[in-house]
Amino acid sequence: MTAPNDLAGFRARLTDLPGPDDAAIAAARARDAQLTKPSGALGRLEELALWYAGWRGDARPRIARPQVAVFAGNHGVVARGVSAFPAAVTAQMVGNFEASGAAVNQLAACFGARVTVRALDLDRPTADFVEGPAMSEEELVAALVTGWEAVDPEADLFVAGEMGIGNTCSAAAIALALEGGEAADWTGRGTGVDAAGLARKTEAVAQGAARIAGEADPLEVLRQLGGREVAAMAGAILAARQHRIPVILDGFICSAAALVLHRAAPGALDHAVAGHLSAEGGHRRLLDALGKAPLLSLGLRLGEGSGAALAIGVLKGALACHSGMATFEEAGVSGG
Amino acid sequence: MTAPNDLAGFRARLTDLPGPDDAAIAAARARDAQLTKPSGALGRLEELALWYAGWRGDARPRIARPQVAVFAGNHGVVARGVSAFPAAVTAQMVGNFEASGAAVNQLAACFGARVTVRALDLDRPTADFVEGPAMSEEELVAALVTGWEAVDPEADLFVAGEMGIGNTCSAAAIALALEGGEAADWTGRGTGVDAAGLARKTEAVAQGAARIAGEADPLEVLRQLGGREVAAMAGAILAARQHRIPVILDGFICSAAALVLHRAAPGALDHAVAGHLSAEGGHRRLLDALGKAPLLSLGLRLGEGSGAALAIGVLKGALACHSGMATFEEAGVSGG
Repeated sequence: MTAPNDLAGFRARLTDLPGPDDAAIAAARARDAQLTKPSGALGRLEELALWYAGWRGDARPRIARPQVAVFAGNHGVVARGVSAFPAAVTAQMVGNFEASGAAVNQLAACFGARVTVRALDLDRPTADFVEGPAMSEEELVAALVTGWEAVDPEADLFVAGEMGIGNTCSAAAIALALEGGEAADWTGRGTGVDAAGLARKTEAVAQGAARIAGEADPLEVLRQLGGREVAAMAGAILAARQHRIPVILDGFICSAAALVLHRAAPGALDHAVAGHLSAEGGHRRLLDALGKAPLLSLGLRLGEGSGAALAIGVLKGALACHSGMATFEEAGVSGG
Repeated sequence: MTAPNDLAGFRARLTDLPGPDDAAIAAARARDAQLTKPSGALGRLEELALWYAGWRGDARPRIARPQVAVFAGNHGVVARGVSAFPAAVTAQMVGNFEASGAAVNQLAACFGARVTVRALDLDRPTADFVEGPAMSEEELVAALVTGWEAVDPEADLFVAGEMGIGNTCSAAAIALALEGGEAADWTGRGTGVDAAGLARKTEAVAQGAARIAGEADPLEVLRQLGGREVAAMAGAILAARQHRIPVILDGFICSAAALVLHRAAPGALDHAVAGHLSAEGGHRRLLDALGKAPLLSLGLRLGEGSGAALAIGVLKGALACHSGMATFEEAGVSGG
């Protein structure tokens, strides 16, 4: 399925979302009831297995080809002193991802996932969203397309990660514009900005959202406040849905990208679970807005897709149990 | 290191516990500070890596040889109707473990762990602890020795799991005897006992603990109320400490076994982390008594070591990051 080539095409895809395979879910539920364990004893692992079976259309699936796609972008708002690291780090970290030296590379390797990296015009940061739109419509579409096309149609699990100095600032502004509240509710320390930097960041978030007050179109909010990598993540998550590839959401920035889809189309994230609760201020509130309970809560706040990559292990464990366990009959065990 | 051959020998081991390697921890901390991530951004994964490095005496370790040891025992108290399943299921499930059909087998395979199984005198259940001591001293020592000897000295991570119809009842009685409170605080539904069964179970727990009211010696409490598999888990966790093998604790029953060591010797569980919070009533309280925060909380209540086996993935991820990531210098990335 090729990527849409304009914004109308992306809007159309959001109104035409494939659903899960109910017959596969029913068959998976019937299998679960026969497995050598008390009913419900695997807790959330059982729910995960049924959810995954539905999206894959297979009552007894395995995860064999997970993909972690990392998107990188630079942000004009960084000139306001909102980050603890200089913008040059974005490109340096892209090199680190490509050389398999970053955290997400280690976690992906741990769980058999392939890492792909897409750097989006790093030498051309988005415009400062406090002053005006971060992207033109053409730039937004290009970023959405990059995300869409990054998804391996043969993958059976997808994680979108990101790198972009300043992007928690962009994500906070998106969340504020879409969900309301106060700028401070959504603004955290990102990579570890100091108190003065946090104050500048909160002010930038407030001003960016105030500049477009009343804007109700999530994709327009994304164009106004988003980074290219944030838009790419949204495009990728939407593409995964078209391919019926289940998604594990990462932390704050990934969740903001997902929120754009969620507000654009109810149910747009039914194929996604929340991988973890990040330590970034505002992430819990963001997951509440998405209606997602995280699989892990270990105080990570790195981005890159790292928390979601770690959660691949949980999902693989769930499917290994569901698809690999003996039934009561096979094992000669008396049922409850 | 051979197993003690009497109770005095086990008591002696509890007063002579090896500690972690502080130099390895310091070296691991220095390495962590150079890795390509903001300081602290991997949250609890960073703490886990330092903890593991200390016990292994290696500033850059990997987990290569994890072991999951499953212990099985039968319980005289089952005759009181405290379980949803018949006692015959214990032996049937041992067959299932040996045939690699159970949940714990799938999870262990997922994370490269070897499963070993020890069935402890299944045709000779412990005595009903409501009426008198569950085990003689000789039986207790035999069970502790079985646990001790089940630990592979070459393993670099250890999980103790269990199977034993009726053993949440035994574990609850141990917790009540050692920690106090009400029987209902510690008694849960186990494999899914109904309301009438839960009432019988709570009463058995209360009577068992009341029978030995005032008993302050944790090993004597274990003899009075414990199952053989519970004692074996305690012996195994203690043996792992002697070998400096880090341990991931499983759910309610494993935590009750661990509590015996914790109350017998402060710090006896410093080499252990809590793998997960079980859905079994009383487990949160038990983890509070141990002073351990769980790595996972996914509503599991299966036992077998399943929750701890799932947490192997988290620990492997932590070590993969710590030991595999590039440093700022190696990657040419500007530090924060």
